[in-house]
Amino acid sequence: MKKRFYNIAIVGLGNIGSYLFNFLNKNKINISNKNINNFKIIYVSAKNKNKKRKINIKKNQWVKNFKTIIKDKKVDIIVELIGGSEGAAKSLVFGALKSKKHVVTANKALISKYGDQLSKIAEKNKVNLEFEAAVCGGVPIIRSIKEGLIANKINRIYGIFNGTSNYVLSSMDQNKTSFNTTINKAIKLGYAESNPSSDINGEDVASKVKILSCLSFNSFINKNIHVEGIKDIDEEDISNANKLGYKIKLMGFSEILDNKIFQRVHPTLVDKSSYIAGVNGVLNAVIVDGKPVGKNIIQGEGAGPSATTSALVSDISSIMRGNIKFPFAISNTRRKKYSSGKITDLFFSSYIRLNVKDRYGVLADITKIFSNNKVSIKRVLQSPQKNKKNSSIVIITHRSKDNYIQKTLKTLVKKSYIIKRPKLLRIEND
Amino acid sequence: MKKRFYNIAIVGLGNIGSYLFNFLNKNKINISNKNINNFKIIYVSAKNKNKKRKINIKKNQWVKNFKTIIKDKKVDIIVELIGGSEGAAKSLVFGALKSKKHVVTANKALISKYGDQLSKIAEKNKVNLEFEAAVCGGVPIIRSIKEGLIANKINRIYGIFNGTSNYVLSSMDQNKTSFNTTINKAIKLGYAESNPSSDINGEDVASKVKILSCLSFNSFINKNIHVEGIKDIDEEDISNANKLGYKIKLMGFSEILDNKIFQRVHPTLVDKSSYIAGVNGVLNAVIVDGKPVGKNIIQGEGAGPSATTSALVSDISSIMRGNIKFPFAISNTRRKKYSSGKITDLFFSSYIRLNVKDRYGVLADITKIFSNNKVSIKRVLQSPQKNKKNSSIVIITHRSKDNYIQKTLKTLVKKSYIIKRPKLLRIEND
Repeated sequence: MKKRFYNIAIVGLGNIGSYLFNFLNKNKINISNKNINNFKIIYVSAKNKNKKRKINIKKNQWVKNFKTIIKDKKVDIIVELIGGSEGAAKSLVFGALKSKKHVVTANKALISKYGDQLSKIAEKNKVNLEFEAAVCGGVPIIRSIKEGLIANKINRIYGIFNGTSNYVLSSMDQNKTSFNTTINKAIKLGYAESNPSSDINGEDVASKVKILSCLSFNSFINKNIHVEGIKDIDEEDISNANKLGYKIKLMGFSEILDNKIFQRVHPTLVDKSSYIAGVNGVLNAVIVDGKPVGKNIIQGEGAGPSATTSALVSDISSIMRGNIKFPFAISNTRRKKYSSGKITDLFFSSYIRLNVKDRYGVLADITKIFSNNKVSIKRVLQSPQKNKKNSSIVIITHRSKDNYIQKTLKTLVKKSYIIKRPKLLRIEND
Repeated sequence: MKKRFYNIAIVGLGNIGSYLFNFLNKNKINISNKNINNFKIIYVSAKNKNKKRKINIKKNQWVKNFKTIIKDKKVDIIVELIGGSEGAAKSLVFGALKSKKHVVTANKALISKYGDQLSKIAEKNKVNLEFEAAVCGGVPIIRSIKEGLIANKINRIYGIFNGTSNYVLSSMDQNKTSFNTTINKAIKLGYAESNPSSDINGEDVASKVKILSCLSFNSFINKNIHVEGIKDIDEEDISNANKLGYKIKLMGFSEILDNKIFQRVHPTLVDKSSYIAGVNGVLNAVIVDGKPVGKNIIQGEGAGPSATTSALVSDISSIMRGNIKFPFAISNTRRKKYSSGKITDLFFSSYIRLNVKDRYGVLADITKIFSNNKVSIKRVLQSPQKNKKNSSIVIITHRSKDNYIQKTLKTLVKKSYIIKRPKLLRIEND
């Protein structure tokens, strides 16, 4: 077969860019053999040339301004590792696709925001836009949806999509430590960035959910998503969950119900003996429910330079083989637009935690409010708090419309015996 | 883009062939859209035309003799669903590749036996030979190794590769039933074939291990494999395993150690709290350990018409996109030949079950034999058997060379106080 040469430029040389640079150089022959064609890193670029890096850049490889790379006719593939949905990353990826370069990116913020526009340019210019590394690092979920599971009509995709928050929750559970202690330890160990807010507040998972929705349902990006993070989870919730037979996980969900798309991210109680309860530490897990295949699980390391490089190289390889051109698995002319469903219309069994004053008749009043709102109670766990005249009441409801649960909480919050804002955690019964 | 038309012939119309036929017809537009090109089932063939099938074959689709299909210039892709490593299936697949037809097959027996020869013909004739459906049905493991995990140097691949045996073992555990009762129930429920021998004796798993080795290590088929089935596992083993904190699973393993390939299939004790212990029923799970990705798990339904069709359609789609031509991920000219390692050179913590006469000094003699053979004992579980003058002794050893364990058993078996052949089950410590 006739061999082609692919010239690659890497823009962004942090931990991931540097790892990828070394990996491609070290494994050049093997990667070329598997993909029939050859490649070469001809340019690299980054903000700061003088930053210390463990890579050996040749003099003629360094390019000061990435705009030069976009215009260079020799370049076939641009790997964007700058990050962020705006600024340099946005200008690089839009510019590259418009100049008919293939693009590989790990940028979930950019793809979940501008993916529709970008994929239209890629399709028009017959170049690839690949982003396996943007969703769950080393877990080859995008390639699996686009190829291994191509036959399937997916109706639900969900799982643990963020390693940092999963590390924090499993560590709080295993070591009985507070949220703040645990997050500081995670930062120290390198499992969380120094500013971990997008991992903790659910935004990172939300970006991944939006991308996975498009791939799973052949739809356009839908920006409506219910997002809750984990910063309000405390030791008492973890301990209550254990007593009741659950673990708490930050999960993302996307599903089609009645022709509407429901996207949500929130801390979720899962049965202790379930598969997902055992996915601990920085691991990610994606569960795909489709026809005819049934339920498929893919699990692996969700982040870090090595796992991300595995994904980036699979994208580069796919381009080198001339494989699939559609960034979202199907032509933009055939992608669908679903209307958005609201979480308030879904049904959950829920965990509700109330802090109340220890007064006569309180539990009777609470249960009456639940009943008035058509929410039926399955279990109650009441524990008096030491040295205080307060009680903690945990209620597990039967499956009820989320709307009714929220109405119940709105009524409760006005009551004088309620000390703190009630806490709601949804239970996954799958 | 210019569209191509792929003409497909399906040979073999059992449950799977019939399901595939209907699925392709029903999802024609969607599959064509995803793969840019179109397709049509132009021929079908099977042994018995008059068998009752739930499919609507047009008059000009039926071909009496599949040899006609091989010779027909209109045919692009032949799907072989006859089964078996010899006879019609062999002659069809060899013939098809020689006539420059792409082949899709679910035939693990054929591929694990003749895969090297077949892949040489396919490569020479520049056609695809695809067999995702031959290994773990709906689990897209082959496509994942060839594409999503393409960057990785895999050093170990293992897991649960047979749904029938996994159903039997998990059912024996959950329902406390005997092997025979359980296998009969499995046949009745359709989870086992009426002659389940290749599922039970480990042969089916062995075929899959051989195929996965080639893909993982870029090697030729290695026929040396240690194979043990599950027919000797009884209720007492299951109960002992539970007491000691384990579950019993039939597992396949392939790994490269000291530049040698070690392939083995045997019932394995796994920690109760491990991931693999929770994979129950007819599910399959494949664990890939590679660099740089770390450990990846893929789990799904391992058999049945729907899961298998998911795999067959992914193969057909890959051909329609003109994707990868190498059946074993890399050109035959670059595949490696490893020498074979022996299980006796590996180290395991082991479970040994002895049935002994209740005599003075027996345990002392047994422990001395272990010690003489350099096998150190970790735990002993001795239980007298009701109404008998016998005891059951279960010994868990520390990690020892398998060879030493086997020598220990050979010495023991000669002793007059040993009633039954000692039983050995290896423990997975991963």
